Amino acid sequence: MAPRASSGGPTLAVVARAASVSVPTASKVVNGREDVAPDTRRRVTEALDRLGYVRRVRFDAARRPALVDLMVHSLDSSWSAAILHGAESAAHELGLDVVVSAALTRSARSRPGRGTLDRIGTRGSSGVLFNLAELTPSQYAWLDQHRIPFVMLDPVMDPPPGVHAVGAANRQGGRTATEHLLALGHRRIAVIGGYRRRMCSTARVAGHHAALAEAGVPHRPEYVRHGNFDETAARGAALELLGLPEPPTAVFVCSDAMALGVYAAARQRGLRIPQDLSVVGFDDLPEARWAAPALTTVRQPFSEIAADGLRLLVRLIAGDSPTETRRELPTELVVRQSTAPPRSNS
Amino acid sequence: MAPRASSGGPTLAVVARAASVSVPTASKVVNGREDVAPDTRRRVTEALDRLGYVRRVRFDAARRPALVDLMVHSLDSSWSAAILHGAESAAHELGLDVVVSAALTRSARSRPGRGTLDRIGTRGSSGVLFNLAELTPSQYAWLDQHRIPFVMLDPVMDPPPGVHAVGAANRQGGRTATEHLLALGHRRIAVIGGYRRRMCSTARVAGHHAALAEAGVPHRPEYVRHGNFDETAARGAALELLGLPEPPTAVFVCSDAMALGVYAAARQRGLRIPQDLSVVGFDDLPEARWAAPALTTVRQPFSEIAADGLRLLVRLIAGDSPTETRRELPTELVVRQSTAPPRSNS
Repeated sequence: MAPRASSGGPTLAVVARAASVSVPTASKVVNGREDVAPDTRRRVTEALDRLGYVRRVRFDAARRPALVDLMVHSLDSSWSAAILHGAESAAHELGLDVVVSAALTRSARSRPGRGTLDRIGTRGSSGVLFNLAELTPSQYAWLDQHRIPFVMLDPVMDPPPGVHAVGAANRQGGRTATEHLLALGHRRIAVIGGYRRRMCSTARVAGHHAALAEAGVPHRPEYVRHGNFDETAARGAALELLGLPEPPTAVFVCSDAMALGVYAAARQRGLRIPQDLSVVGFDDLPEARWAAPALTTVRQPFSEIAADGLRLLVRLIAGDSPTETRRELPTELVVRQSTAPPRSNS
Repeated sequence: MAPRASSGGPTLAVVARAASVSVPTASKVVNGREDVAPDTRRRVTEALDRLGYVRRVRFDAARRPALVDLMVHSLDSSWSAAILHGAESAAHELGLDVVVSAALTRSARSRPGRGTLDRIGTRGSSGVLFNLAELTPSQYAWLDQHRIPFVMLDPVMDPPPGVHAVGAANRQGGRTATEHLLALGHRRIAVIGGYRRRMCSTARVAGHHAALAEAGVPHRPEYVRHGNFDETAARGAALELLGLPEPPTAVFVCSDAMALGVYAAARQRGLRIPQDLSVVGFDDLPEARWAAPALTTVRQPFSEIAADGLRLLVRLIAGDSPTETRRELPTELVVRQSTAPPRSNS
């Protein structure tokens, strides 16, 4: 959108009326957007020229606070709110402004679409935080060529060497969850992972297996399921688990949203939580407190991850080269009401 | 934060080392932040000069997409995520970028702090969306003097004439909630409002009273309480209501978070929802689905409000002057499991 024209010149609204288009359409032409019909673009351009519209930029570039980009997978979730909260707080501390976009939502497989990176270059961002992103080799190369510093927050896949990433201690978190269930006396402990190929999920499942192995509990392949971080899929996986000849007495579920699916499956089978089935989630979203019974879960430090990533980004922008490229912030088990010892006859 | 220096010049990290300060501190000085000790500032400035540090601005200002500011009350909540989601989607459609800040959190009484507005001017924002803000007369005057277009989303108080605001149809929502309870056969219906002085809350309570009056149900002052949009306060208010000689059989609670407090109060008194007490919330946060039983509530169109506000802001920036300065988007009752007819002996 064009800033307000200075007094004297025509406004964009006047231009739009002259070209018989809406203001948003005129705005798109002024801002170089592609999705305008050629004929419309021509009409608007003619009106701009004829009326002498001047797109004025109000600010003094030299005094402008620097911008950083935060590109997230989706904005409409409480964990993205926590990521944003952490990044914004840390940016404020350092006098930076944060441009937020959900560019990763609008593209396939968590990859920024074409044009998105160009836009970063045009805007003059000093650096980028990517949350839950998966970049292609050519995108990594683009960032390198343009010398745009960036940090991956909770990367989907293991990034190439030299790329800086901050995330939660997922493996440790998975271990802690299962150790909690073991300490309560459970031995028949199932796990419902997220996506099979996503790093955070495989690390949580690996931590679960490590805790079982350390306790000498044999690995049972039928107790390992995947729910794609989706409530409905997790409900299906839980129903399968509860239908086994020897069903588990406890389930470690690799996200709070999936734990809600397990709650639904237990209700459907007439099982009480925690008396008949213990459930541990992962994330500690605000929602976890609302579940009945309140969900025992592994807290991910979303805000701290984002704040840490932003401070790291600032060091990279300043030309510093921290040798440590992977940082993991500790997770924490939050014990609420969804876990208890197994019933004696189990 | 300063963009990366061009090859040849010293990086900010080098400057920081020369001045014996941290990179963030050097960055603060470069970016004109106030919170740096005078002696430190002097050391950094000397190092900047001595080493010939050049703060380069990478972008071409003329090609830079326009920025708008979104100032929110808090980022760490699921409704602010929905607001942000709506604003970002609409901005993307129009080719704008959104700078997000929680500036209102850091100041008293939802007012942007000193420096916050100056920063908008410096940055060259084309306009501002304020969410849940309350501006002072001098702040309104500042925006006017600087000719910065702005729109209030869900304003705390009635803004001055001529100020554009977009919000939910709060009064209609309150009316619908209570009409639903009346249709189920309830006559003893209490209300728990938010802050007494906040416009959205008074409108919801007014809608409730209108529905009761229309149905010929007498007004009972003891059935009207306030919970300050706080779960614990609402729990206290609900306990008072349930302790009345003739307690209500249903409660309309003016936010989902407060409804959670009412759930806790009912549990404490051994009452079942909805058999012994019907509850209707307001907001339809993602959390409402997690409550057990799932909460019947009035959906606020947060994303649509933000998207509508952004499109309106774009018209204002373009010099258009819509005569309609107040817009209310419809709310919608979402019936789930927390409401039922009163027991016959009630």
